[in-house]
Amino acid sequence: MEKFQPVAGNGLLDRRAFLRGGAALAAAVTGYARAEPLAEAPWSKEPGELVPAYGTPSKFEKAAVRTLSNPKGEPRTSHARTPHQLLQGTATPNGLHFTISHAGNADIDPAQHRLAIHGLVKRALVFTPETLSRYPLVSRFAFVECGGNSAPLFSPEPIQATVQAIHGLASCAEWTGVPLATLLEETGVDAKAKWVIAEGADSPHLSRSVPLEKILDDAMVALYQNSERVMPGQGYPMRLLLPGWEGNMNVKWLRRLELTEQPAMSYYESRTYAPILPSGKAYQFYFIQEVKSFITQPSVGFGMKGPGFYEISGIAYSGNGRITKVMVSADAGKTWAEAALQEPVMSKSFTRFRIPWQWNGGPAVLQSRAWDALGNVQPTRAEIVAQRGVASRVPPPTAFPSQHYNAITSWAIDANGSVRHVYA
Amino acid sequence: MEKFQPVAGNGLLDRRAFLRGGAALAAAVTGYARAEPLAEAPWSKEPGELVPAYGTPSKFEKAAVRTLSNPKGEPRTSHARTPHQLLQGTATPNGLHFTISHAGNADIDPAQHRLAIHGLVKRALVFTPETLSRYPLVSRFAFVECGGNSAPLFSPEPIQATVQAIHGLASCAEWTGVPLATLLEETGVDAKAKWVIAEGADSPHLSRSVPLEKILDDAMVALYQNSERVMPGQGYPMRLLLPGWEGNMNVKWLRRLELTEQPAMSYYESRTYAPILPSGKAYQFYFIQEVKSFITQPSVGFGMKGPGFYEISGIAYSGNGRITKVMVSADAGKTWAEAALQEPVMSKSFTRFRIPWQWNGGPAVLQSRAWDALGNVQPTRAEIVAQRGVASRVPPPTAFPSQHYNAITSWAIDANGSVRHVYA
Repeated sequence: MEKFQPVAGNGLLDRRAFLRGGAALAAAVTGYARAEPLAEAPWSKEPGELVPAYGTPSKFEKAAVRTLSNPKGEPRTSHARTPHQLLQGTATPNGLHFTISHAGNADIDPAQHRLAIHGLVKRALVFTPETLSRYPLVSRFAFVECGGNSAPLFSPEPIQATVQAIHGLASCAEWTGVPLATLLEETGVDAKAKWVIAEGADSPHLSRSVPLEKILDDAMVALYQNSERVMPGQGYPMRLLLPGWEGNMNVKWLRRLELTEQPAMSYYESRTYAPILPSGKAYQFYFIQEVKSFITQPSVGFGMKGPGFYEISGIAYSGNGRITKVMVSADAGKTWAEAALQEPVMSKSFTRFRIPWQWNGGPAVLQSRAWDALGNVQPTRAEIVAQRGVASRVPPPTAFPSQHYNAITSWAIDANGSVRHVYA
Repeated sequence: MEKFQPVAGNGLLDRRAFLRGGAALAAAVTGYARAEPLAEAPWSKEPGELVPAYGTPSKFEKAAVRTLSNPKGEPRTSHARTPHQLLQGTATPNGLHFTISHAGNADIDPAQHRLAIHGLVKRALVFTPETLSRYPLVSRFAFVECGGNSAPLFSPEPIQATVQAIHGLASCAEWTGVPLATLLEETGVDAKAKWVIAEGADSPHLSRSVPLEKILDDAMVALYQNSERVMPGQGYPMRLLLPGWEGNMNVKWLRRLELTEQPAMSYYESRTYAPILPSGKAYQFYFIQEVKSFITQPSVGFGMKGPGFYEISGIAYSGNGRITKVMVSADAGKTWAEAALQEPVMSKSFTRFRIPWQWNGGPAVLQSRAWDALGNVQPTRAEIVAQRGVASRVPPPTAFPSQHYNAITSWAIDANGSVRHVYA
């Protein structure tokens, strides 16, 4: 291992190690055999499967799906979580993008759907999906994250669950749509307007109030998601996209934008997404998803295959802009090493980080910590719990802190190779 | 229209027009109505559809699928083409990534699949998919294009077909895998090695010879495609990725890399992908997919909705590196205006270009022309036909030019609003 000197405790290697090649890895990775003669597998001896009109994953990848909180579609909220532990790269495939639907996925005929922009405008306008497609479009990569993602980490004891169960309510896609700045030039804006009430066409008519400043900054009406039309679970035929802001504000099945002087104080902003803090104040109108990261490989559910070389890999993002640095620790935060960031690093988008690791077979606690372009640093769990408290099992439910957990996640590697969720 | 002065003939507007907002567009785009009261659609009055484990497009988007050349899976090659006219952005969704399979999609059990690297190496090694996943991974966006994409443009008369039928054998994805430079450090390389024979585990055992220099430059064994495992039609559980090089060389279902002194002169490189030029020489071992662009919206199949504002949008790419400029003409190449390129512009990847256009309702011929970082410029059709000839209906079939058409495509807009493919 003389090529790869550890740069932090418990075996973390320099992030540039992989750029110099892997000659030292051969001894660490098992499973080799002589190459020849090559065996002829059954699929090499007969024609393959039909090429379909719309490709789907291999039947051997059935585990790489979203987990469902409400698989029978009972009359309550449905959550579908992204399997981050099985993914690599940055953009989430559309089939695996997380969904939260408060009454199922609205099944909208685009020929009948309308978007109204009205209220404090100079002239109210109604747009069809086809009319919107005539406007100049822009594309950008952006993550969307539920405000309640990672809520299990407010639990007083660490819940043993996969990264999908804990952090699966965040995904990233290339969105294409019409900038709202363009559409509001069409309607004109009354000088008194300060807020925009966005409302969905789903049966709960989910609505949220958005400051006009954000709408004029980088908001869009998204028509496409990773190049194809937005999926039903992401708001087909159109959703509001507010890059970096709380997921539910990115209103799906968007049918109305009403410009107003005051926020609507809608159900979803005054109750569901407004938990009570220990101080007795509501945690409300906190829009930005702050800087965050978590390790996806290895994580709970992985079985380590004995001591040797592993790559630690994960996702970092910030609603404030670009990720500038991710540090990784293998010794529960005593020492840290800088991870490699996969280029291109895009603002308000997932950034994949990776760092090589020589596991010595002993106990280890893996953590990641991210920094963003505004200089924000991901907090420790102790810091966020000190501000916002810990979930208890005592009612009322609105007194549980459950929103905007962005602190560090810790995975403990045991000597037997299993991975546990711990607080460290 | 005083805000938007044309910058080239027949109504092309400055590419920055959309950055200044769209107040001038209102008069040009029809379909408005008063906003209130909002109608309540059926889907706003009842619970929606079940949230599935793997999301799929809306049932109203059934046309957004690949077209199939061999839908019954007869014993011949199957082509599945990407519907570019219905897509926006840059990364092709996995379900819509083009596929060419010479005997269907091999249906491979990853637990039994092996990749051998052997021949002129210091030690032959065999890798399982799981072993490869232990290595340091890299991600990059890259297009893959069949050498025969756009072959209809060698026809003596313009074929009336959609952009999907003409240019649908090119797609783009974020690929994640192990750099081959890393794996060849593991095996060691004999000084005599100059070529690498890549072979698939599909029943035709498609094989191609790749210069070792490319393998050591930016080639990878790709395990993931847009974050999830590579699709069966793209080579599950692994494919060779040679960014910017001819599609079939990116060998799917990869099972063998043999280092040699000479190319193999395999069937696919000595016959299928080696057409005879007018000079009598074979057009062989021409690897790079040269700089290219085409307009996707509007294109054949679109019906223009009367005079007024439209956005012209398309895709540009080069196997040599980044796209540096795309020019668009609305008057068959007499005058040109520079299109906006969607950031980030990535090397050997699709780049989306867009330019605003005020259609006056008269005849127009739309063209795009791209430049790359090496200074290459997309040729005119006359230039490429002068070099390589035109397809005829006379045998032998190998005398048809059919490969590496990268010249300009022309769409004629007629006064009735229909779009035709023309040579101009």
